[in-house]
Amino acid sequence: MAASGRQLEARIVDLILERRLTAGEPLPAEPVLSKTLGASRNSIREAVRALHTLGIVELRHGYGTFVGRAPLTAVTPGLLFRTRLAVREDPRALADLVEVRELLELGLIEQVAEHADDQLLRSLDEEVAAMRAGDLPGADRRFHEKLYARITNELATQLIALFWDVYHQVAAELEAPPVDSGQVADSHRRIVDALRAHDAAQARRVLRYHFEDLHERVDRMVEAARARSSA
Amino acid sequence: MAASGRQLEARIVDLILERRLTAGEPLPAEPVLSKTLGASRNSIREAVRALHTLGIVELRHGYGTFVGRAPLTAVTPGLLFRTRLAVREDPRALADLVEVRELLELGLIEQVAEHADDQLLRSLDEEVAAMRAGDLPGADRRFHEKLYARITNELATQLIALFWDVYHQVAAELEAPPVDSGQVADSHRRIVDALRAHDAAQARRVLRYHFEDLHERVDRMVEAARARSSA
Repeated sequence: MAASGRQLEARIVDLILERRLTAGEPLPAEPVLSKTLGASRNSIREAVRALHTLGIVELRHGYGTFVGRAPLTAVTPGLLFRTRLAVREDPRALADLVEVRELLELGLIEQVAEHADDQLLRSLDEEVAAMRAGDLPGADRRFHEKLYARITNELATQLIALFWDVYHQVAAELEAPPVDSGQVADSHRRIVDALRAHDAAQARRVLRYHFEDLHERVDRMVEAARARSSA
Repeated sequence: MAASGRQLEARIVDLILERRLTAGEPLPAEPVLSKTLGASRNSIREAVRALHTLGIVELRHGYGTFVGRAPLTAVTPGLLFRTRLAVREDPRALADLVEVRELLELGLIEQVAEHADDQLLRSLDEEVAAMRAGDLPGADRRFHEKLYARITNELATQLIALFWDVYHQVAAELEAPPVDSGQVADSHRRIVDALRAHDAAQARRVLRYHFEDLHERVDRMVEAARARSSA
């Protein structure tokens, strides 16, 4: 009996791991996979394409098929679609995305407060200055990226970045109201002040205020979107 | 100029949203998509397959192609592969996954403590009893599922479930050492006690202890895996 697409994909993944292939190494050729796994070359080709969509393999045209790193960014289109669909039914779905980022960041900020050194603090000061000069959302994204740059949990930091990107794309579609860059700069400056004092509890508190601002912004966005669609 | 695969996928997603199609509704037929988007039917077919892998569309054999919900479970194969690959290089990567779950759960438990009612508490008691009777990891998973069942942030609760599944699959591969079901039951009972007292801070504290246990278990697993591979 032929394996279903999903099963065949799982068997190719197992084969990659059993042969101890690492990211960047070539996959066995299609005829080899076909013979080893007892599946038609067409089925193999389809399964490999699905693995490519998930970032598990990389197709380099003219070179062949290689093991990928399955980066979390492979998830972006699905998460973006899911959020856009949900927001259309109930715009508050955007708040869920912000809350997930909040849960992750609130948990990590205490670790950051313990290890914040002069180099980090100065580079955060630069982004606060850039915000004050009106560079939003560029400086905002860089601020949060720098904040967690030394956290060794790559999964957590990549998730934060992923949710940031999806939030901003959906917010752009919802025509987010203009923000007061001075206010955004102030709320980030308070985070830097707490880190400079190595006060983990205070860092957590001001980060929470920062997210309260963000939640209010989402509420206003949602109200404006509702007003437009009922106009 | 022909759009790249990713661009074509994005244009199909835009078309779904512009036409206000919702989950379960049929996608326009292939020839229509081909004409509307100015792409060959082959390219359309490939793009639709990629969207299927991401759960953005569903293919029902013999019925056609429908709009999907892009469930987070579409992410499981990629996250599982990524974790298995990372754990092979450094088994501590498994701890990152546990920490992400910890960050999310610690943030949500305070909301649970506020709203815990008798029905929830009794059903959590049942799972603690099942753990004590040795039903692991079944009762453990159900406990955490029930705990967050009334949290309205679906994204957060689905992420917790996703990381749970990936953790347990990788732990099974690493031949996780046997756990003391009485100890696991005790640590969950303490969570229920705190919820029964509606003591949010205590609920957070005992949940944190629970995760410390889990981190110790991961450490032992990692040591055992290292000992095996160097033997």
